[in-house]
Amino acid sequence: MKKFTLAIHGGASSLDPKKLEGDYRLEFDAGLRDALKAGYDVLAKEGTAIDAVTAAICSLENHPIFNAAHGGVLCNDEQIRLSASIMDGYDRTAGAVMGLQTIKNPITAVKAMLPEAVVCLFGEDAEKFSLSKSCESVDPSYFMTERSRNSWLKLRQGEGNTGAHTFIENPGNTVGAVALDCHGNIAAGTSTGGLTNQPPGRVSDTAVIGGGTWAENNTCAISATGDGEAFIRTAFARRVADLVELKNMSLQEAIEFTLLEVEKAEGYGGAVAVDAKGNVALPFSSPQMSRGWISNDGLAHYAIFPDEDLTEQF
Amino acid sequence: MKKFTLAIHGGASSLDPKKLEGDYRLEFDAGLRDALKAGYDVLAKEGTAIDAVTAAICSLENHPIFNAAHGGVLCNDEQIRLSASIMDGYDRTAGAVMGLQTIKNPITAVKAMLPEAVVCLFGEDAEKFSLSKSCESVDPSYFMTERSRNSWLKLRQGEGNTGAHTFIENPGNTVGAVALDCHGNIAAGTSTGGLTNQPPGRVSDTAVIGGGTWAENNTCAISATGDGEAFIRTAFARRVADLVELKNMSLQEAIEFTLLEVEKAEGYGGAVAVDAKGNVALPFSSPQMSRGWISNDGLAHYAIFPDEDLTEQF
Repeated sequence: MKKFTLAIHGGASSLDPKKLEGDYRLEFDAGLRDALKAGYDVLAKEGTAIDAVTAAICSLENHPIFNAAHGGVLCNDEQIRLSASIMDGYDRTAGAVMGLQTIKNPITAVKAMLPEAVVCLFGEDAEKFSLSKSCESVDPSYFMTERSRNSWLKLRQGEGNTGAHTFIENPGNTVGAVALDCHGNIAAGTSTGGLTNQPPGRVSDTAVIGGGTWAENNTCAISATGDGEAFIRTAFARRVADLVELKNMSLQEAIEFTLLEVEKAEGYGGAVAVDAKGNVALPFSSPQMSRGWISNDGLAHYAIFPDEDLTEQF
Repeated sequence: MKKFTLAIHGGASSLDPKKLEGDYRLEFDAGLRDALKAGYDVLAKEGTAIDAVTAAICSLENHPIFNAAHGGVLCNDEQIRLSASIMDGYDRTAGAVMGLQTIKNPITAVKAMLPEAVVCLFGEDAEKFSLSKSCESVDPSYFMTERSRNSWLKLRQGEGNTGAHTFIENPGNTVGAVALDCHGNIAAGTSTGGLTNQPPGRVSDTAVIGGGTWAENNTCAISATGDGEAFIRTAFARRVADLVELKNMSLQEAIEFTLLEVEKAEGYGGAVAVDAKGNVALPFSSPQMSRGWISNDGLAHYAIFPDEDLTEQF
């Protein structure tokens, strides 16, 4: 069987390491391992990169510790709005949504857009489209967790800031996955609840093809997390792919280079990327980024802090 | 006075040239000349590239022959939704909106976003933000023209297609402008009503930073028009800038190269671009693109068909 690879992230963060001890830390680790297992199971059965990315992100979306679907953060109107995007490296088809309120797994909605003429939908039409494709719908209260509500209350009691850098409030943040399948195709996907206390109509880089998500077989598949506006202003994911293609940079070099450009826009974060050769990179400029990767040998690698490398054999 | 340059477009199209004769053609020419004059007046008075781009696009938005603001096409619910974006090449600040329904000049809304933390807003929040920044609001009926309504009725009586390539129905299409000012800064902006009979929540490349709009002083400023989905899937404007920066392509070469990539995604269209040296390019892969440019000498160049070059001295 040819090489396959999956890399995931559960968000960039600058949370105090002391707040990530004990059960809370174990919950994070479990969330990362579950997502790696979900994607690995698809790839090991010769499934496609798109299906592996979708399975891994569904797992992260369902896990309340991450800021995507169940566990998503609250907007300034006390409701949750979900965004996601996906891209297939084989033919560069893509899908993106923003402002979902009842779709249990936004990543399934964008996957359903891949064969469609329209690439990106917002608000009510994104919701309608998802329902027309039989995406599972839930009551909006499903997405709300005590943790995300408390973060929102805390921010409201403070400055009520809706600007950049509020991602530090969310230890679990935007989630994403990239995969290379045994057929040689790559794909990328990203899903988020956005920023705590954001206006409901704010567009995250997660919903921008070329911003938070990009995939093309001849370069790489990328999913980003961090200060969304700085990633949009850098057209981050497209930029990384162009540096790989046009400057022959490695994935690691291209992401690190582009993260410096993001810093010029006063943003921090990270990304995961794979290419068609099975190379994988997971760099970040934020103090930490929950992340993981796995390949044919079934040895799951996962970590939150820099230089960490925890493993589990599936 | 140092060199300044302005280039504009009034949309890519494949309309039968026979339908562009007589008064209809004169109306197009007047629309292009008026926009060039509006932008030129700003630049000649040592105004900024951002202000020149805004002035030129306001002029195009106000002209009913183009598919932006007044003259915008109808969505499948018989209403008009407006999108726009802008980017300042000096610091890569950017603004984008989608789904506006009452703001007379969407380009003024995105200009007002430049100093804000949030880069992109959709729907009601885009509307609210614009009003909070004192952008002029009008009754939605202001945007509707007999021509855009008839195009919609014709399409509804036909196949009701909402997919790609419906841009051929709109001889005047998405509008845009790019400028270099005498201070050495460049900027880009784009504004559109989208596709005739589109779902109200469809996102045009016009609202995607790196898709339809991009500007950075060290590479170039670009505004695109054409089959939006193909431009999004190519991250068109960012790609052009990367080819200029990383492969030392000329503006013309980089746009032509990227239009071939757009064709692989079954899309056609064009773009206007300037760089900080005052180079200008206006290539297109569609049968025609209404376009124009002007520099310090005040000689306005404008055209619709390939190889045309009409002029007027301001």
